[in-house]
Amino acid sequence: MRIDIISVVPELLESPLNHSIMKRAQTKGILEVKVHHLRQWAVNEYGQVDDYQYGGGAGMVMMCEPLAKAIEQLKAERPYEQVIYMTPDGERFSQKIANRLSLMGNLIIICGHYKGIDQRIRDHFVTMEISIGDYVLSGGELAAAVVVDAVGRLLPGVLNDETSALTDSFQDNLLASPVYTRPADFRGWKVPEILLSGDLKKVDEWRYEQAVQRTEQKRPDLLDS
Amino acid sequence: MRIDIISVVPELLESPLNHSIMKRAQTKGILEVKVHHLRQWAVNEYGQVDDYQYGGGAGMVMMCEPLAKAIEQLKAERPYEQVIYMTPDGERFSQKIANRLSLMGNLIIICGHYKGIDQRIRDHFVTMEISIGDYVLSGGELAAAVVVDAVGRLLPGVLNDETSALTDSFQDNLLASPVYTRPADFRGWKVPEILLSGDLKKVDEWRYEQAVQRTEQKRPDLLDS
Repeated sequence: MRIDIISVVPELLESPLNHSIMKRAQTKGILEVKVHHLRQWAVNEYGQVDDYQYGGGAGMVMMCEPLAKAIEQLKAERPYEQVIYMTPDGERFSQKIANRLSLMGNLIIICGHYKGIDQRIRDHFVTMEISIGDYVLSGGELAAAVVVDAVGRLLPGVLNDETSALTDSFQDNLLASPVYTRPADFRGWKVPEILLSGDLKKVDEWRYEQAVQRTEQKRPDLLDS
Repeated sequence: MRIDIISVVPELLESPLNHSIMKRAQTKGILEVKVHHLRQWAVNEYGQVDDYQYGGGAGMVMMCEPLAKAIEQLKAERPYEQVIYMTPDGERFSQKIANRLSLMGNLIIICGHYKGIDQRIRDHFVTMEISIGDYVLSGGELAAAVVVDAVGRLLPGVLNDETSALTDSFQDNLLASPVYTRPADFRGWKVPEILLSGDLKKVDEWRYEQAVQRTEQKRPDLLDS
């Protein structure tokens, strides 16, 4: 899988993409992530990529031309399945969307900044708009890193133990059950005895019950869907 | 405001915290973010901070002792208003929660990794559990960076133009209206004429209508809340 990210602050993405699981995915050749500085396609020698918004008001808008050129240059090099724009008014990102994207080949992700990108790019180039949640960030870079991480860890071979991702929250519409490790008694707070019993069938039942109970308490909406 | 982040992959947070708006907030002295490597409080000389989970199963669990010691050491230095754990089964992060956190003084944020942290830390130390969305990440670091960014940009003096954050999506339960910048005609795709009219009252009305319309189309749930 290959993901091309277009950004005006590419340095922001350095450490999230170069450590931990994302690094492993890239070292293993399972995932290739390229971050492109939008200024390469600036409209003038000053590196301009944004301008005041029509109609007035605070905040700059990312211009059509640099984005159009960036997308077109990438598309000339290889086919892309989606041109994704990270924006708070996009489709809400979920484990389902992460699963879906993890099956694709090449993706472009555009990171917005300031007040966002010119609407004409959204209308004519963008094929998918994703929001990672109902809050505003100073740019789309962290949101893009979240998508790359959530998708990247699902690619076969990225996680060491493939069963690990399957027992995560959301893969079965249930939150994960509580987890405990040594010591069995920490300052008088004890691990539930069933987990120490060695009876794997009972442990599985307990975990399932806990997962259902936790989901009912915290996120009943997941059980309806 | 001060935010202390406890992590097993602190280097992952380097670039998100040291660029763009987060850098500005820290340079101006409005926000102080300290990232602590959990291994400082490891249980042995090998730097151990995690162990197999009780009851068996894939994935490691972050141990009680290092986390308890880290939190206690920080709390001995200054008071904290919240000890936050980033977890997919926490309360869903939103602009409302970002607004609320932006009014606080000192926060601790714990980043989970692997299968998460020992439940006893959640029961006895954590005061708030936050999820940035219904998807699983390889660790809590990106989620913590998202919270720090969403909260940090709300602190007075961080954004250049204070009105800018107020017209973002969600601040009034409406998505933002479309934005456009020069040129007025790009490859035959034109900017809506009203934005070029110079009539600020009409522009405001149009933007409000567009925001309501976009919210009705994409996120009717926001209008009910």
